[in-house]
Amino acid sequence: MAFKPPLNAPIYIALVHHPCLDRAGSVVTTAVTNLDIHDMARSARTYGASGFFVVTPVEAQQQLVLRILAHWRGGAGARRIPERSRALELVTVVASLDEAVQRVRSAHGEVPTTVATSAKAGNRCASYREIAGELRRRRPVLLIFGTGYGLSPALIDRADRLLAPIRPAADFNHLSVRSAAAITLDRLVDDDWA
Amino acid sequence: MAFKPPLNAPIYIALVHHPCLDRAGSVVTTAVTNLDIHDMARSARTYGASGFFVVTPVEAQQQLVLRILAHWRGGAGARRIPERSRALELVTVVASLDEAVQRVRSAHGEVPTTVATSAKAGNRCASYREIAGELRRRRPVLLIFGTGYGLSPALIDRADRLLAPIRPAADFNHLSVRSAAAITLDRLVDDDWA
Repeated sequence: MAFKPPLNAPIYIALVHHPCLDRAGSVVTTAVTNLDIHDMARSARTYGASGFFVVTPVEAQQQLVLRILAHWRGGAGARRIPERSRALELVTVVASLDEAVQRVRSAHGEVPTTVATSAKAGNRCASYREIAGELRRRRPVLLIFGTGYGLSPALIDRADRLLAPIRPAADFNHLSVRSAAAITLDRLVDDDWA
Repeated sequence: MAFKPPLNAPIYIALVHHPCLDRAGSVVTTAVTNLDIHDMARSARTYGASGFFVVTPVEAQQQLVLRILAHWRGGAGARRIPERSRALELVTVVASLDEAVQRVRSAHGEVPTTVATSAKAGNRCASYREIAGELRRRRPVLLIFGTGYGLSPALIDRADRLLAPIRPAADFNHLSVRSAAAITLDRLVDDDWA
């Protein structure tokens, strides 16, 4: 497709566990799900992302993620499934989204364009074509995914861009974050597959 | 995109636990993963699929899936997350892929076009455009996903079509089946999202 020349910008993804919403709309900190880390790391590696930030302010949860990473990067998991270790090498645990932004700035000398995602349409939503265009410039891009019932409105407001929902017209729009991240990377990154 | 008018054909997905390959290339029966059922049911519902077959010949595994479904369709799970019950309504447990084909025939009076998927390229691979074209005809389509290290070659050979890998040129091609199914549905079903 014409709007998908090779990527010029480093692309990062972040999975945010705080601040997120619960079913009632309150701001909460969600628990880390093991399979989110695996699936999103595998998708990130498959689509050529430069890194995957797991964001949680809870120290015990950070330790849990580090233990999972140690198992798969260098432990028994890495011996059993070596390609999993290549995916999980992309993962960095951070306490906040700001820390993720600073890590990208340290690596590339420039803060990334932050792109929030949501299953709900907002009036400033950018199309996939627009964000794919950002990825063909040079500035890094950080795609932000929420857990629970989505990113908090305050976090979305602070992001540079808000990406359109995946299927705004569908009468059911409850993809897992694992599936949503995979589809989003495919739409933004992949070249002509049709 | 021009090749994506509204769907005319009912679309089904199947997640096969036998016959699949293990890492060494032997034919095995894999264990059911709870989150596969949730994620693929949510993707199936989001993309308007008519049904999702979980295929395992092992009776204890069939019972396990039925227990999961009972919890989420009518039990405590359904009360806590009602939309999950709408996704899991699509799931049917069957002992074999042939049984899935016969179920589709019973529902629509016609056997489905069976479309195997694989992370490895084969010389008879159909493009996404071609299979999207099938979905604009009237005959039902059954998309078949494997677990473990993929569908057995014998099963792939028996399928009417083999879909191209998602990223044949990537140097890392180890998406989870949950992610692969989500991307495949998005490529085949969704209308113009760019």
